[in-house]
Amino acid sequence: MTGPGRPPGALAGVRVIDLTRVLAGPFCTQLLADMGADVVKIEGPDGDLMRRTGTVREGLSWYFAQFNRNKRSVVLDLYGDPGRAALADLLRSADVLVENFRPGVLARMGFGPDRIEALNPRLIVASVNGYGSTGPYAERPSFDFIAQAMSGFMAASGAPDGEPMRSGPPIGDLVAGLYAAFGVVCALHARGSGTGAGADGKAGTESGTRADPGQYVETSLMAGLVSMLAYASAEYFATGRPLARSGNDHPIATPYGLFEASDGHIAVAPPDEAYVRRFLRVIGLEALLDRPEYATNEARRERRRELADAINERTRTQSVDWWIERLNEGGCPCGRVMDASEVFSDPQVLAQDLVLDVPHPGAGSVRTTGFPVKLSGTPCAVFRPAPRLGEHTGEVLAELGYGPERIAALAAPAPRAAQAARDAPPAPETG
Amino acid sequence: MTGPGRPPGALAGVRVIDLTRVLAGPFCTQLLADMGADVVKIEGPDGDLMRRTGTVREGLSWYFAQFNRNKRSVVLDLYGDPGRAALADLLRSADVLVENFRPGVLARMGFGPDRIEALNPRLIVASVNGYGSTGPYAERPSFDFIAQAMSGFMAASGAPDGEPMRSGPPIGDLVAGLYAAFGVVCALHARGSGTGAGADGKAGTESGTRADPGQYVETSLMAGLVSMLAYASAEYFATGRPLARSGNDHPIATPYGLFEASDGHIAVAPPDEAYVRRFLRVIGLEALLDRPEYATNEARRERRRELADAINERTRTQSVDWWIERLNEGGCPCGRVMDASEVFSDPQVLAQDLVLDVPHPGAGSVRTTGFPVKLSGTPCAVFRPAPRLGEHTGEVLAELGYGPERIAALAAPAPRAAQAARDAPPAPETG
Repeated sequence: MTGPGRPPGALAGVRVIDLTRVLAGPFCTQLLADMGADVVKIEGPDGDLMRRTGTVREGLSWYFAQFNRNKRSVVLDLYGDPGRAALADLLRSADVLVENFRPGVLARMGFGPDRIEALNPRLIVASVNGYGSTGPYAERPSFDFIAQAMSGFMAASGAPDGEPMRSGPPIGDLVAGLYAAFGVVCALHARGSGTGAGADGKAGTESGTRADPGQYVETSLMAGLVSMLAYASAEYFATGRPLARSGNDHPIATPYGLFEASDGHIAVAPPDEAYVRRFLRVIGLEALLDRPEYATNEARRERRRELADAINERTRTQSVDWWIERLNEGGCPCGRVMDASEVFSDPQVLAQDLVLDVPHPGAGSVRTTGFPVKLSGTPCAVFRPAPRLGEHTGEVLAELGYGPERIAALAAPAPRAAQAARDAPPAPETG
Repeated sequence: MTGPGRPPGALAGVRVIDLTRVLAGPFCTQLLADMGADVVKIEGPDGDLMRRTGTVREGLSWYFAQFNRNKRSVVLDLYGDPGRAALADLLRSADVLVENFRPGVLARMGFGPDRIEALNPRLIVASVNGYGSTGPYAERPSFDFIAQAMSGFMAASGAPDGEPMRSGPPIGDLVAGLYAAFGVVCALHARGSGTGAGADGKAGTESGTRADPGQYVETSLMAGLVSMLAYASAEYFATGRPLARSGNDHPIATPYGLFEASDGHIAVAPPDEAYVRRFLRVIGLEALLDRPEYATNEARRERRRELADAINERTRTQSVDWWIERLNEGGCPCGRVMDASEVFSDPQVLAQDLVLDVPHPGAGSVRTTGFPVKLSGTPCAVFRPAPRLGEHTGEVLAELGYGPERIAALAAPAPRAAQAARDAPPAPETG
């Protein structure tokens, strides 16, 4: 937790207004908040759906807690004029707005480009959506699972004789959130360094003397995963043929993949012939490499199954621990296939501070994952736990200069208008 | 391609020295280069292994081209003193150094923290490695496949009755590269905004009057994927039990997943009861919801297989196209399971400029994926194609003030020292 002497984060002093919900958007703003930005999460009177997702203990969803640490929560009814006026004031005070509505919803709420320009020409507006804001599918709802299917990611995963297989973690949501955070900080850099927005950008259109214009940043679940196809896209472009799924096997290198120990699987990934030799030496099969049918990778690919059977016959004789120790001694890249219970008791994961216990007043100590990117001078930190719904409504509005009566009027729960069901985007994927 | 009137990228004016190879590191620097940074890729006389990976046409690997656009290539022999002296001069001129050696290799090359501090206290040094630079596994080699196994990512993916399944795309490498790029830009922001490095950082240790200190940025393949477990980590922390693999099924919501059309699979993801009703209405099974055994999600989970059979019986009667059109009309989130050939001819993917044809002098037009994050004012662009090996050695060294003789001496290929095999890290995963 924060305390005297803790250095500020890299984004200290950056204020982010966060209209996002559920996963891709909240992950973006969590990354910014972990870097020290002041993220003000705006929630409707019912709160982010994630507050009710997954296991809830002492009134707190641990899933929500993981994605909303370091944020402040302000409840505003954005279907009413007073709430929208408060949002306008918040945007005047901010550097960044992040939203993950469907394209067009923000404008229908009264915050289209002209209004944003009038409110705060320095504002960076970041959008995370399903397919991008232009093109034939722009209006369609999307979710992680759909994005995995439509991006080619799913078709590239799974066993050759099985169906396309999603990744269990919601990688489409998370990659999009990470791209959005990257784009926001690039836009902050451009604004600060005076690189500025060009003729096509939002800024620079009316007021000619603006030194530090904001701009729009956009990413989508689909674009994020398409950019992650890597070898599968490059090979398709080069050959005109989609890669076949290869399960846990490498599309080219052999041996490579999961092998069976007496009590679980080991993952082995020899990157070249020298490492193949080290691997087979450790398991006592180095002599195979003297036989023409196993001497080269090309020859071994023809006998992938026979080779795997021979390897498994050896590896099944000992435990995962036993093999991992010997393969590491032998210099062969390998690893244990670990589930969450093993990951979060692993000595390396603990040494890297990838498990954090965060005190939540009233809800005890909540365990969460740590920071995947570490900065030596301005480290990420848990500056505050995930907020209770509306915990900072009064505090944030008072910072805008609102008096107690105005704050009380805004904080009173308003009945949701019938319009709500029409305007509200569906809840993004929850896992 | 760049041209008159094109706005500079968000990171225009930022100089990056790139010592990375193969995938996680080059992806990081590609993201920075797409944003307009001047990335100087340092390669040994043999070049990045990726230049020889995947399909090579007209002497150019299309896989290499995809991950190295917008960079300049300088060949230096970093096993010799002249090459290391040139690297030192490059670091004096730079804002950022990115490397993906194993921990300790950079210091053994003569560029430990004290030397970096003396050369350029403003330098941001970013490292991408397997496990982080501290802890019991810090020295082990890692690769995408191993990181997927050891992070819990693989155990969370795959069919319930099958083995843990990797994602086909090298998501461990790519997520680490994206985190590193995010960390670099955060550190650039901290440096520019004067947030500065604290007592624990590299900077601030000796020269007291430094306004804009650099710092170290680090991420690892393992940490990146651990941070992506999302629901799987939160639920484990909350309950103490790892989630079971659920294949393409949602761990909770039913119906949800892949269903069979007459000519392929459709992905359907109804996020709540209202959407379940829309889905079943479109396929003519809405009446099921009136029966107690299908009325609630809890009840349907008990009959997941029976319900899927009933749905497949209907969906098999028509084509993917037919169902996608009707499900979209009915407002149900859905998508086609597409392989690369379908993705890269999809009208939305094309409308979002996710396919780019980049002219490579001497190697024709090379197709590559577009930019997943779009900035309106300072857009990403292909400022230059992926470089030929050493294409910019003379140009870049001349910018340092080196004369023709010194440049010629450096450019002459030197025999690789015996030390090379000892110092060089193994080649990271190639896909």
